[in-house]
Amino acid sequence: MRIVITGGFGFLGRQLTGTLLTTRTFRGAPIDRLVLADRIVPPESPSASDPLVQIVHGDLIDRLDEVFAEPVDVLFHLAAAVSAECEADFDLGMSTNLDTTRALLEAARGQSAAGGPAPRVVFSSSVAVYGSDPALPLPPVVGESTLPTPRSSYGIQKLVCEQLIADYTRRGFVDGRVARLMTVSVRPGKPNAAASGFLSGIIREPLAGLPAICPVRPALRVALASPRRTVEAILRIAEVERSTGRGRLDGGLPVNLPALTVSVAEMLTTLRQVAGDAVADLVSIAPDPAIETIVGSWPSVFDNTRAAALGLQPDPSFASVVREYLADHPEAVLADLPPAR
Amino acid sequence: MRIVITGGFGFLGRQLTGTLLTTRTFRGAPIDRLVLADRIVPPESPSASDPLVQIVHGDLIDRLDEVFAEPVDVLFHLAAAVSAECEADFDLGMSTNLDTTRALLEAARGQSAAGGPAPRVVFSSSVAVYGSDPALPLPPVVGESTLPTPRSSYGIQKLVCEQLIADYTRRGFVDGRVARLMTVSVRPGKPNAAASGFLSGIIREPLAGLPAICPVRPALRVALASPRRTVEAILRIAEVERSTGRGRLDGGLPVNLPALTVSVAEMLTTLRQVAGDAVADLVSIAPDPAIETIVGSWPSVFDNTRAAALGLQPDPSFASVVREYLADHPEAVLADLPPAR
Repeated sequence: MRIVITGGFGFLGRQLTGTLLTTRTFRGAPIDRLVLADRIVPPESPSASDPLVQIVHGDLIDRLDEVFAEPVDVLFHLAAAVSAECEADFDLGMSTNLDTTRALLEAARGQSAAGGPAPRVVFSSSVAVYGSDPALPLPPVVGESTLPTPRSSYGIQKLVCEQLIADYTRRGFVDGRVARLMTVSVRPGKPNAAASGFLSGIIREPLAGLPAICPVRPALRVALASPRRTVEAILRIAEVERSTGRGRLDGGLPVNLPALTVSVAEMLTTLRQVAGDAVADLVSIAPDPAIETIVGSWPSVFDNTRAAALGLQPDPSFASVVREYLADHPEAVLADLPPAR
Repeated sequence: MRIVITGGFGFLGRQLTGTLLTTRTFRGAPIDRLVLADRIVPPESPSASDPLVQIVHGDLIDRLDEVFAEPVDVLFHLAAAVSAECEADFDLGMSTNLDTTRALLEAARGQSAAGGPAPRVVFSSSVAVYGSDPALPLPPVVGESTLPTPRSSYGIQKLVCEQLIADYTRRGFVDGRVARLMTVSVRPGKPNAAASGFLSGIIREPLAGLPAICPVRPALRVALASPRRTVEAILRIAEVERSTGRGRLDGGLPVNLPALTVSVAEMLTTLRQVAGDAVADLVSIAPDPAIETIVGSWPSVFDNTRAAALGLQPDPSFASVVREYLADHPEAVLADLPPAR
């Protein structure tokens, strides 16, 4: 079983790698090789020294020969340019998100056409495929049968890739699966260029004793999932059999990951409850129309029936999300937090 | 006003050319140049000698410099590989329908980026963006807010282009419009490789005294529009102002063209009524699963509210469609048809 993760050293890639290197199996079969492909490979990474791991370093589109040098059984395609990048640089988004995904699909098709396995391709799509504007409002509750009308180039690129994967799957070139990720919060580490980045930053930075700016009105409601729930869901969607009754994936590919709906104000209240006034006061509100337009166009309330049928549940509360972050990243948190209220 | 029609010598291209060379205006402004781009240019075409007409002959993707040599104000993008071709030859469809459209959009973006006009791009999409399979049935009545789930590579390619045009429009690179064409019947001329081709053939061939094969069960219902209604609608969608109340185009780009819903059996009964038993008996039924799968996956009943708001109405009856064909193509019809019942 040879498994590839693109964006293998990105945030979700590292989480997924950690899980796979712990279980060392996929659907009960031993993993023989875990290929981590990424443009940037950190100088020291604990996974790099694992005998199962092979690193493919460079622009993915130039490294496909290496990725497909031996048969790929499962391909987690997590690498992408993020939303605000794609809005700022149209060509970058089209190239990184569309052309690279298409080249990957072609390589996978080449493998199955040559008599190899049709790889299981797990694509990380996004809540950003949904967009709302005054002329075309979304319904109050969004599900997989809601018409996606993206309002960002990133969302368009994700939706286009979903369609291509659906066709490659229908034709038997690959066995495609599409996980539409909610905004992941709380992400550890440094801020990224995602428009939604602040939804981690307004928790992560104050917990580290740093100031943070909230670029939207606090009343804005968002759909979140914790890193643990997100990686669990990606893996479940990868492992599930196609067409097996309740857990079936045959009613269209995309699965919207389970979403916890909270307002930004509720997030900040939770921070205050968990970490105290001094920490919560590190957040200042300074709305940025560019960010608010993108994030505000995403739906916040989901019908998660389809995810639930796969056994996937949302985080129970934002307090639980924050507590998970504190448990998983003690090194990134002030030592002297007051006891949680 | 410089107008380009890709697929300018295709069936719809010729109809649209005929209309534009008659009015010689677009939205009240005189047409200075009508560029007809096509891979195949017939040796003798009445429009070729018109002083307004410029012919661009060759593969579109190689001729974009010529198409955009002077500013393009309106681009009707009708050129495409048809449904059965794309199902038989995946690469052909991806190249002709996706890569070429993307190259056109890039050329149009180049024009507006260089300070020229953002061209009005009118894209002929298709009812084939909708597809139904047992695991993902369509609602009984389909409208623009129905989630398209194409069941053919052609439908996927059209849907992907719709998404790209939506993003190019949102970003101001072009002024895009999307007309989702119903199956056009009765097409004159020779059969083509469209899966829906028989929906013209079972009328056109018998009227010319030739046998025809109907490759689907007669109970199958289909959504049709006559050539006249189709070209009228494409032109209306091209000419309408964006965001002008009732005729507005701002609630998403695609407009499903008005559809006449008929069963194949009703079409054949109409043929019998209009042309008599001897003509109708030229049709034999021989279901072809490949054709039935594609055409049977398309919806047949539409909510045409959006088209109606633009002043577009479906054909009143299939008898009217056949009578229009008889009036427009007397040269292609047996001289001794019995008087219509």
